[in-house]
Amino acid sequence: MGLDLRGIKIAIIGGDKRHIYLMPELIKLGATVTAVGFLPCPELEQVRLVEKVESALQDAQVLIFPMQGTDQAGNIRTYDQDVKLCFTPAMAAAIPHGALVIIGSARDFIKEWATKYCWKLLEIAEMDTIAILNAIPSAEGAIQLAMEKLPITIHGSNSFVLGFGRLGKTLARMLRGIGANTTVVARKRADLARIFEIGYRPVHCSQLHQVIAEADVIFNSVPALILDEKMLSLMRKDTLIIDLAASPGGTDFGAAKKLGINAVLAPGLPGIAAPKTSGRILAQVIPQLILREIPQDYF
Amino acid sequence: MGLDLRGIKIAIIGGDKRHIYLMPELIKLGATVTAVGFLPCPELEQVRLVEKVESALQDAQVLIFPMQGTDQAGNIRTYDQDVKLCFTPAMAAAIPHGALVIIGSARDFIKEWATKYCWKLLEIAEMDTIAILNAIPSAEGAIQLAMEKLPITIHGSNSFVLGFGRLGKTLARMLRGIGANTTVVARKRADLARIFEIGYRPVHCSQLHQVIAEADVIFNSVPALILDEKMLSLMRKDTLIIDLAASPGGTDFGAAKKLGINAVLAPGLPGIAAPKTSGRILAQVIPQLILREIPQDYF
Amino acid sequence: MGLDLRGIKIAIIGGDKRHIYLMPELIKLGATVTAVGFLPCPELEQVRLVEKVESALQDAQVLIFPMQGTDQAGNIRTYDQDVKLCFTPAMAAAIPHGALVIIGSARDFIKEWATKYCWKLLEIAEMDTIAILNAIPSAEGAIQLAMEKLPITIHGSNSFVLGFGRLGKTLARMLRGIGANTTVVARKRADLARIFEIGYRPVHCSQLHQVIAEADVIFNSVPALILDEKMLSLMRKDTLIIDLAASPGGTDFGAAKKLGINAVLAPGLPGIAAPKTSGRILAQVIPQLILREIPQDYF
Amino acid sequence: MGLDLRGIKIAIIGGDKRHIYLMPELIKLGATVTAVGFLPCPELEQVRLVEKVESALQDAQVLIFPMQGTDQAGNIRTYDQDVKLCFTPAMAAAIPHGALVIIGSARDFIKEWATKYCWKLLEIAEMDTIAILNAIPSAEGAIQLAMEKLPITIHGSNSFVLGFGRLGKTLARMLRGIGANTTVVARKRADLARIFEIGYRPVHCSQLHQVIAEADVIFNSVPALILDEKMLSLMRKDTLIIDLAASPGGTDFGAAKKLGINAVLAPGLPGIAAPKTSGRILAQVIPQLILREIPQDYF
Repeated sequence: MGLDLRGIKIAIIGGDKRHIYLMPELIKLGATVTAVGFLPCPELEQVRLVEKVESALQDAQVLIFPMQGTDQAGNIRTYDQDVKLCFTPAMAAAIPHGALVIIGSARDFIKEWATKYCWKLLEIAEMDTIAILNAIPSAEGAIQLAMEKLPITIHGSNSFVLGFGRLGKTLARMLRGIGANTTVVARKRADLARIFEIGYRPVHCSQLHQVIAEADVIFNSVPALILDEKMLSLMRKDTLIIDLAASPGGTDFGAAKKLGINAVLAPGLPGIAAPKTSGRILAQVIPQLILREIPQDYF
Repeated sequence: MGLDLRGIKIAIIGGDKRHIYLMPELIKLGATVTAVGFLPCPELEQVRLVEKVESALQDAQVLIFPMQGTDQAGNIRTYDQDVKLCFTPAMAAAIPHGALVIIGSARDFIKEWATKYCWKLLEIAEMDTIAILNAIPSAEGAIQLAMEKLPITIHGSNSFVLGFGRLGKTLARMLRGIGANTTVVARKRADLARIFEIGYRPVHCSQLHQVIAEADVIFNSVPALILDEKMLSLMRKDTLIIDLAASPGGTDFGAAKKLGINAVLAPGLPGIAAPKTSGRILAQVIPQLILREIPQDYF
Repeated sequence: MGLDLRGIKIAIIGGDKRHIYLMPELIKLGATVTAVGFLPCPELEQVRLVEKVESALQDAQVLIFPMQGTDQAGNIRTYDQDVKLCFTPAMAAAIPHGALVIIGSARDFIKEWATKYCWKLLEIAEMDTIAILNAIPSAEGAIQLAMEKLPITIHGSNSFVLGFGRLGKTLARMLRGIGANTTVVARKRADLARIFEIGYRPVHCSQLHQVIAEADVIFNSVPALILDEKMLSLMRKDTLIIDLAASPGGTDFGAAKKLGINAVLAPGLPGIAAPKTSGRILAQVIPQLILREIPQDYF
Repeated sequence: MGLDLRGIKIAIIGGDKRHIYLMPELIKLGATVTAVGFLPCPELEQVRLVEKVESALQDAQVLIFPMQGTDQAGNIRTYDQDVKLCFTPAMAAAIPHGALVIIGSARDFIKEWATKYCWKLLEIAEMDTIAILNAIPSAEGAIQLAMEKLPITIHGSNSFVLGFGRLGKTLARMLRGIGANTTVVARKRADLARIFEIGYRPVHCSQLHQVIAEADVIFNSVPALILDEKMLSLMRKDTLIIDLAASPGGTDFGAAKKLGINAVLAPGLPGIAAPKTSGRILAQVIPQLILREIPQDYF
């Protein structure tokens, strides 16, 4: 669509398969891309692959970190698992002032560094556009998982979706598209009205206990302990739980195990189930963010 | 669902066909209902129909005014068009202190009286639950109108929906359900991501002028002058406009006429197209509002 | 698609609004078109409009009669209602031998003339392609009628479709697309399996009497007396019947009237509800038929 | 629904997981069930499990063989893979005259024995009801396979379905339900009209070569060599082929391999992907067949 990244220097600091698809797109738009933590492959032919993170940081106007961010110790996921990367104070000090730092979500220490060193820090995992688009591969990954684990078809099954946010909306639509009897559980009256309008069965979360025994499969997208021991005890033993809420999920997994209920924690599916689509989503959104955040006179 | 209105005295002050369906539902839940502005009919057998508004106000704990509210002069729509009702200062003074006054939307002078006379004033037309449910009859009314006025089928037509709010969402779903090529025009990036996910063609409002000539029919739900003279001049002459935004709508009707484009202003369709469904929506929501707003010790 | 009708002489003998849309399409493909029974209008600028049917027949290689055919007396529907046309033995004798005669459906006397005078007679109303495409405007017309006559919305209504043939399939899809609880009644086990797979409620016709009281609206597409007095007596008084089967339909209209049930006979809706779409359907199919049926050396 | 199999003796001769779900259903309806080739498990508690096929045949009124039938040598698939079963002439001779023999599809030698020994032979794999219902687990299995093998989501992908029969119809519906751009390739004009009406892109098989390069994934349901070397050479290398037609499928797998195209032959998915649903389908249809085929005076 005529986005122009010519002259912009971008550093990719770790990442996963999605970034293999993202980098060629950035190059197509004119950017110069340096990456650390990747192995050479045909897709990355025009990327400058470096071994030391310092070579990547130098001159970079934009730095792209993984969607998962780092762990508490600062470790950064790399595609080439032989390369160990860590977001150290030294690395932070080496990032140019004024740089745009794009990351899925940032721990507190990264936020502090951003203030200290005057980066523009963008946490994108929860940005609406990305989160809504990422709901597509997440939902498909969840459905694939359910298909693998269920002895029955999704078609004709009683599928429950807990939560009617970005992921819940997409999941419910796909489940019904396949032919499931779709129940959506929500808390807000307005959501329940919309759920009714779309044609799913609306259930207020306060009534869930009355109908949960009907469920063949439950997809949870709410980051709160909804499926606690008491609720689990009302379920059938052959109901499958797929918990998509951010770790630790919304299920008492210990109680589920004791009760013999199969519960799977599966957050962060987009990068795994459909890395190419997920990479394209990043490639669709990130250039716009860069152009919006980097002042024109920079070039 | 076990709602209990026993002992509650409700006055219906004017209204339309929807209220014919609402009143028996209130009575079923145990309420005592008095109404002014209606003719006797089988549905209203158990309603106390009075001629003078004062007899209705007396003792009333809940007063229900029309969804349209009043005009600036205070005139109240009545089902029996021979009865003229006006919300006068005298009527205001006769409403019991502490009463719950339910109205679609209230003019400023009504709001002032509410403060002065200590009523609980509830404007319900814009309440999310009612507005979302009302989108259903509104959307169907709009589609019926389009079917009547178009020489082509909705199926296979290029249908544009302007706005992705409560009405736009429902309209788009129904249009696609019939088989239209559905384009949805919105301003927010998050809405456009959702529109893409659902499978409509997303168009940012800043790009509308580039594609508007493709439209066979345009449904506008945005209360802003989007279809101005310039935009109209880019349209085909045989495109139909159905403007559902609150009066004066989002169309320059004068310009449309000059250009020979058929544009219809059709706000407030729910009560007309499907009064029974609309009445049921009121009957579903109003009892809950009453129970929430009237303190228990009142009884 | 590169269809070429150059050099072919076509006569349009009566018809309706659909033919106003058909004729320019035939001309675009290169045909020479003569018509009788129409008034001058911008769409027909390049059509030779004649007053006497004889002038139209002369030299015609292809003759197109109305979709409704004629009545038993041979009367032909005309768009210009001041022109009276009748398919007389004299007219039959004036049609060139070897001509292609296209008609919706032909009475027996027309079939006999076809044999006697060596025309190629094509009855197209029941041709699968046309009938399936015509189901689209027919279904929309039926839904429009239901919207006009029902006090409730299609959304959330209990809509019954009798028959799962060309029209029933399209109707059921649209009704569900709008949000109806859709029940489809069929006789064949394979159809019921498909109805289940699609997600409608399947009901075998032998079980209809058990559930018919649930229906808010019934669309009949079966040309057999299904809604007889006994079945009608099991229905609610406020159920609407829209009978789309070829006259006399599948309803005992007398009994319905006695019982106070609103039953509407509405066959042949495509030409009325969406003449432009219906005209396009003819314009899409008829040129292919002509090229298939007229030997190449004819030109 | 009140089907009554009391007093009927049924023998299950081999089979797969589906039969584990089928047998308890037959017992619930009153039948006496003997099975060979299965291991004891809670579901089969009330089944008489025997080791020798002769003990199963004795007195059996109904014999149920696997859906796959036998191979050319007569080998019968067994759930307990340690048990080897073979449909020998001796076994054939031991089947009671007049017995009902139900099998997916029967080799010629079985048909000859049926005539010779006066069995009623029912081949059910191609029976419409079973084949349409089996299309559901087959389609889901195919979609699961595609999800596993594709780096992109089904949503937004260009998905092609070859064939619009029992399986193609279900596949197309589910693919679109997930959000794929769905193209359906068919040969009959009437099918193409229906494909258009439903809203998929219709492509006549003679035009497939013009658009095949657009496909991200192709699901073939036509048992004819459509994807031959020439067609494959027009495809992109990253297109996935899932061939669901009965072995040997509709793909030149050798040519695909040479061209570097990933093609998977996956017929007979229902029993694998969703054995419980598939077992329920058998349990829904087989009792009806038994009651229809076994004369009442038999009991």
